[in-house]
Amino acid sequence: MTYSKFEDDAAVVAFVRAHTDQFTADEPLHVEEIGDGNINYIYRVKGNEGSVIVKQALPYIRIIGTDWPLSIDRIRIEAQVLQTEAMWAPNFVPKMYAFSAEESAFAMEDIGDHENLRFAFIERHPLPSLGEHLGLFLAETLFHTSDFYLDYETKKRAVANYINPGICKITEDLFFWDPYCDHERNSISPPVLEAAQGLWNDKALKIEVTKLKRQFMNCSEALVHGDLHAGSVFVRADSTKVIDPEFAFYGPMAFDIGSIIGNVLLNYAGQFGLAGPKNERDDYQAFLLGEIVNCWSAFHKRFTDLVAEKSDEPTMSQPDYVQTFLADVWCETVGFAGTEVIRRTIGLAHIADIDSIDDIELRAKSERWALALGREMIVNRHSISSPDALNAIALALPY
Amino acid sequence: MTYSKFEDDAAVVAFVRAHTDQFTADEPLHVEEIGDGNINYIYRVKGNEGSVIVKQALPYIRIIGTDWPLSIDRIRIEAQVLQTEAMWAPNFVPKMYAFSAEESAFAMEDIGDHENLRFAFIERHPLPSLGEHLGLFLAETLFHTSDFYLDYETKKRAVANYINPGICKITEDLFFWDPYCDHERNSISPPVLEAAQGLWNDKALKIEVTKLKRQFMNCSEALVHGDLHAGSVFVRADSTKVIDPEFAFYGPMAFDIGSIIGNVLLNYAGQFGLAGPKNERDDYQAFLLGEIVNCWSAFHKRFTDLVAEKSDEPTMSQPDYVQTFLADVWCETVGFAGTEVIRRTIGLAHIADIDSIDDIELRAKSERWALALGREMIVNRHSISSPDALNAIALALPY
Repeated sequence: MTYSKFEDDAAVVAFVRAHTDQFTADEPLHVEEIGDGNINYIYRVKGNEGSVIVKQALPYIRIIGTDWPLSIDRIRIEAQVLQTEAMWAPNFVPKMYAFSAEESAFAMEDIGDHENLRFAFIERHPLPSLGEHLGLFLAETLFHTSDFYLDYETKKRAVANYINPGICKITEDLFFWDPYCDHERNSISPPVLEAAQGLWNDKALKIEVTKLKRQFMNCSEALVHGDLHAGSVFVRADSTKVIDPEFAFYGPMAFDIGSIIGNVLLNYAGQFGLAGPKNERDDYQAFLLGEIVNCWSAFHKRFTDLVAEKSDEPTMSQPDYVQTFLADVWCETVGFAGTEVIRRTIGLAHIADIDSIDDIELRAKSERWALALGREMIVNRHSISSPDALNAIALALPY
Repeated sequence: MTYSKFEDDAAVVAFVRAHTDQFTADEPLHVEEIGDGNINYIYRVKGNEGSVIVKQALPYIRIIGTDWPLSIDRIRIEAQVLQTEAMWAPNFVPKMYAFSAEESAFAMEDIGDHENLRFAFIERHPLPSLGEHLGLFLAETLFHTSDFYLDYETKKRAVANYINPGICKITEDLFFWDPYCDHERNSISPPVLEAAQGLWNDKALKIEVTKLKRQFMNCSEALVHGDLHAGSVFVRADSTKVIDPEFAFYGPMAFDIGSIIGNVLLNYAGQFGLAGPKNERDDYQAFLLGEIVNCWSAFHKRFTDLVAEKSDEPTMSQPDYVQTFLADVWCETVGFAGTEVIRRTIGLAHIADIDSIDDIELRAKSERWALALGREMIVNRHSISSPDALNAIALALPY
């Protein structure tokens, strides 16, 4: 294997022609690189009418170069996960056309008629089905890859198949360590430094974060997406697509649910200071909290139904157990969401929802609010027993 | 690979001569099969002075035959685990001389000067260091195979290396399912049937058992022995050796600690009805409870020291976190111990500690006592915060 970048557009075209039947043989194809430039290469290949996306991974992080190696195995994992997700939640992921280990690349459906959820949030686009779609996606993918559905041997082989150490290590550090100490990778706006230092000295918080880290590292419960932030979701008013599962591994269900709910709350924090009329921002904040309720309700209902319909695991399918299990998943969801809220505020990777607030003091108000919310969610997650209880905390927290 | 049984004694001798240097070339060797006949073949090969044990696994369960296939991979796992244990707890395991995948067999130190702990318990032998030895063995093996010690990549590769589905499935069924329903594999003494039926109808208990099962299936925390009952431990007054790790896999630390503590309590239950003067039986019961305290204290102290000395994992090594973690491990230990107590009383595999009570009514009294204790331990494990609290429950439970 050479693991080298496609040499030129012609190589990308050749890959698409060899591995998909999306274009006629004599159709002229146009190639455009559309990636964010961070980790991988993403190409859009356009024909007369249709188009295809090609994603290529190299054995290092693109933006840094060969100094930060990253296992090429992640592209195999991403391709397999997209196929698994498509089996159970076909409406919510792009179609995978072909994966080639030789080129460490795959071709998939172009979902260019969708927009990135992060920017839809920032621009306050109405997304009436978002929470429901996400809840269904989560229920289908997490149920069907867990012991609730898979036989013991398939499940355990899958755990081994999706072991993804280098990728998990990134999350272990960025979520559960950096923001809780004075780490050089952190990016802290000066007016927030004092609040950040408060977290570094907060022993109770650091213990709870480490408990969540232990779960992240040791709870091989379901095949989780592993990086389900708003930038991994593409939306139209009537459609939701989840992409980029290269961080997938067998982990706790609550990590995925918490990651996306954390991103909803981060946009909520940003709306305090983003441009636009106050009533419009207030309304969008109310919409965001409603979608947290909708996401969890859809997940809870669909997961419960799936167990009743499809689980022949006699102990885990006991209805009382399922409800206890889901109640535990919810509490851990709140905790993981809190870690996402905090790490996006003072850690390495910030988000435009808050960073695009131009006024540094106004931005700092959103950041401090996010830190306070995240702390509360992590430390008190066992007593935050429902989305309504979580929303009540967000509503009561002074801005 | 043929995976066939050693044809005759000469084949066993040839194996030992080829793979170990324990005997001189012209020394006459004598072979004796000493296994219990259940799953594998165990040979003692004796020379003029020394001796060696050979263990051979076949791709099925010996006592049943080819009708119950069992992956041959278990002998590779057992050999590797014995070597790993020997690295960290050399005093507490037999020396491994050689493993050969070709013959699916290994040769190890003969610990024939030790006796099986189950029979030492039944005969009430004094074992003043037992609890301490077990606690040290558990601390060394569990710490050094967990995220507290291993780097992220080594740990995750080890999880994959020790995936052991067929073996784990046996435990998943026998511990966490059979005893809680009217299963054909159960073995229930008629006077205990009513008490067993009580468990089958006990919804709260079944939910807690399923939570423990979820942990057993999903918590890949450390390389656990996986079958640490009294029959896997060999003892002298001054020495303790743990054998038979063929059920090893990456699981919860509390499963190992709970399994052995469950066996101590099972012998406690048996002592009510075993032969011998009451004061002798009372004294031995008091000794047993003391060894539970000693085992946990030694584990707790050594684990805490190991983290302080050797862990460079910055979050998990926070002293406050370690104490919280160990408190959680203790509660789960109580729960797993409860499942061991119950499954040995009404499940498939009984133990001589209770079964050797001849009088069926007297035996049933011990069995009912064990069931009541096991239930209490499982359901209330979160409020049983120390070995002393556990012992107080055993002492207060009417016989």
